[in-house]
Amino acid sequence: MSSPIEARKNTKSSMKIDNAPTPHNTPASVLDTSYMRNGLQREVPQTIVEETTTGAAPADEEETVSRLQQPLLLQSIQEKLGTLVGQDSGYVDALPTGVKRRVAALKSLQADLFEMEREFQVEMFELEKKYLAKYAPLYRSRGGIVSGKERPTGEQVAKGAALEEKLAGVDTEGEGDDGDAEGIPSFWLTALENLPVVNETITDRDAAVLEYLEDIQLEYLEDTTPGFRLVFCFSPKTPYFKDTQLVKTYYYQRELGYSGDFIYDHAEGQQIQWTDNRSNVTVELETRKQRNKNTKQVRTIEKLTPVESFFNFFDPPATGEEEEEEEDDEEELEARLALDYSIGEQIKDKLVPRAVDWFTGTALEFEFDEGDDLEEGEFDDDEDTEESDAEEADDFASAPEQAPECKQQ
Amino acid sequence: MSSPIEARKNTKSSMKIDNAPTPHNTPASVLDTSYMRNGLQREVPQTIVEETTTGAAPADEEETVSRLQQPLLLQSIQEKLGTLVGQDSGYVDALPTGVKRRVAALKSLQADLFEMEREFQVEMFELEKKYLAKYAPLYRSRGGIVSGKERPTGEQVAKGAALEEKLAGVDTEGEGDDGDAEGIPSFWLTALENLPVVNETITDRDAAVLEYLEDIQLEYLEDTTPGFRLVFCFSPKTPYFKDTQLVKTYYYQRELGYSGDFIYDHAEGQQIQWTDNRSNVTVELETRKQRNKNTKQVRTIEKLTPVESFFNFFDPPATGEEEEEEEDDEEELEARLALDYSIGEQIKDKLVPRAVDWFTGTALEFEFDEGDDLEEGEFDDDEDTEESDAEEADDFASAPEQAPECKQQ
Repeated sequence: MSSPIEARKNTKSSMKIDNAPTPHNTPASVLDTSYMRNGLQREVPQTIVEETTTGAAPADEEETVSRLQQPLLLQSIQEKLGTLVGQDSGYVDALPTGVKRRVAALKSLQADLFEMEREFQVEMFELEKKYLAKYAPLYRSRGGIVSGKERPTGEQVAKGAALEEKLAGVDTEGEGDDGDAEGIPSFWLTALENLPVVNETITDRDAAVLEYLEDIQLEYLEDTTPGFRLVFCFSPKTPYFKDTQLVKTYYYQRELGYSGDFIYDHAEGQQIQWTDNRSNVTVELETRKQRNKNTKQVRTIEKLTPVESFFNFFDPPATGEEEEEEEDDEEELEARLALDYSIGEQIKDKLVPRAVDWFTGTALEFEFDEGDDLEEGEFDDDEDTEESDAEEADDFASAPEQAPECKQQ
Repeated sequence: MSSPIEARKNTKSSMKIDNAPTPHNTPASVLDTSYMRNGLQREVPQTIVEETTTGAAPADEEETVSRLQQPLLLQSIQEKLGTLVGQDSGYVDALPTGVKRRVAALKSLQADLFEMEREFQVEMFELEKKYLAKYAPLYRSRGGIVSGKERPTGEQVAKGAALEEKLAGVDTEGEGDDGDAEGIPSFWLTALENLPVVNETITDRDAAVLEYLEDIQLEYLEDTTPGFRLVFCFSPKTPYFKDTQLVKTYYYQRELGYSGDFIYDHAEGQQIQWTDNRSNVTVELETRKQRNKNTKQVRTIEKLTPVESFFNFFDPPATGEEEEEEEDDEEELEARLALDYSIGEQIKDKLVPRAVDWFTGTALEFEFDEGDDLEEGEFDDDEDTEESDAEEADDFASAPEQAPECKQQ
């Protein structure tokens, strides 16, 4: 079961768990009927999850003592632990035949479940697409207002001003506001510079280019391909490159992950048609003059050195054809991939749906408030959706609770 | 846009980001047209997100120098920073009128988006329910096989054995396996003891009680109430309490969170009808004899002390009527709530859909493999779903990629 209704991200809550009082952990179980008496078996989790350390303690005091009296055995076990993750501990093998048959049957049922979960994900993906299409007119209007191609209506201004006190003084009468044709200068640059992770990749030179960014649009891939696409729309006035849009596409793997969710597979970018090497912010240009000793002719040599730049986002690291690489290279590749994925995610999940809040900085206030709902009211004065409470309460009118029953035959 | 298709959890990827090579951070932007020249404004994010530190550097070298020459101003700014989170920095106020109108219009559009996102979440929730109903026969069958009330079919055993090499030796002929009536002893106890976070709460005494656990079922709340319910089904043979099921219900808030997802509101448990104080594993029973000095009569005094126990899960911390509490109490309450949520999540999202893998320990291998798909193949020999590749490829046949267009008027 994947979790679209995942009110609190796992990791958020485990962060909190770190602060939780450690429960008094008496060694867990183990009764005569339990299948967890094997000391080695019980140790395996320790190498995987720290939290299991106490829960995975040996079965009883007697066993603890006898193991402590055998430091060599203990040491040898510990040496093996490092290589045990993902390996068969022999646990299943040791089960009685009748139980093994039942475990096999459960495995079969679980495989059927995997199949159904795939259908679920496909339907979910369709639902995402359907709603993105519903959002489209809003996003289009936003793009127009930001770029100056569309004028805000008096109604929009009045509603927005009512939603946010900061904007209370805004003149909501008429449409003849000053500076109308300019839209909102630096809108996307400012928003991107407030966006975690992304902001770290933006250099001074990048900022100058991003001044010409007029919109960022999200699209899902066509029907049968799972993935999405970020389209960066630039003003044709940009002197830096010939493109008016730069595209980055993320593909998911065709198989679902173990948790039943899609997993990123790879990303594809776009070769930017920089006006010239001097415009290209992903390289540093060094020119040197050389004189030919014989002909005395002078020629200019250009040396291009790749530099960090936000625009490297459009030249994502490739995973496909990696040969047996050095471990260091592999680590660096992983780090670059992680950064690349993270930027895509921040833009898709945070920036696109809440762009105006990233522009004003309001969204930053929610960066740690999310999942931190225990301290409610902390940012009360920024609640924008208060007026819709009444409607929402209608939609979610409480239903009388029914007593559940264990549905077994 | 919430993200059911969230292949890689934010936090997972940010964990990776910690390992990413720090990009060379030249101070970000700022051009004449940018709205980020205000040093104070730009500092605000620093108190919120560490990553913005470098990106949020002052506008240009000249400004840096002038500010460094005013240590008192700097100090006074820094003193204010601590209280600035969530406060209006005056940034929006300082925008020209025309731009303010446009920002207000965007706010209005975003409010419309919030409304649509609510519909999306409701539809998503319906989809979850629909699929849970589809999974129900599988889960019922699993419950029967675990408790011994249902016999696995030869077909199920054969399919399961084929899926997992470890089970290769299992006799798939006939249905007359030995120990048939017993089901799989300690199934749920073993699974729970492998489950992160949850395993830390299980004491020896709890384990004895959990031996009688026959099924854990997930239900969503009726039509209009967002939330879910975990139903723990016990054998009527349990000597510990009179209940055959223990229920824990999690309610979501009626309003969506800022990210567009549901947010946990509170949880409700159930008062367990322990057979007697000695059976009650959530308390420690101390008996003392007292003799009346006058009458010389002896009476037994029972003293009950609450102790840590998995079964405290059914007595969740209340959030509702908290008065102005001490900060320490509040922190402890938060920690208890976080643990409570986390346990509910682990059981709902991990244990229920993959119970057999938690029983065998296989699921533990995926605990860090999730999102860690860069090191593919690490646990290759545990891929259970390989045979479905062909079908999946069909469903997700690649579509020709279309060139996107910036959809602006």
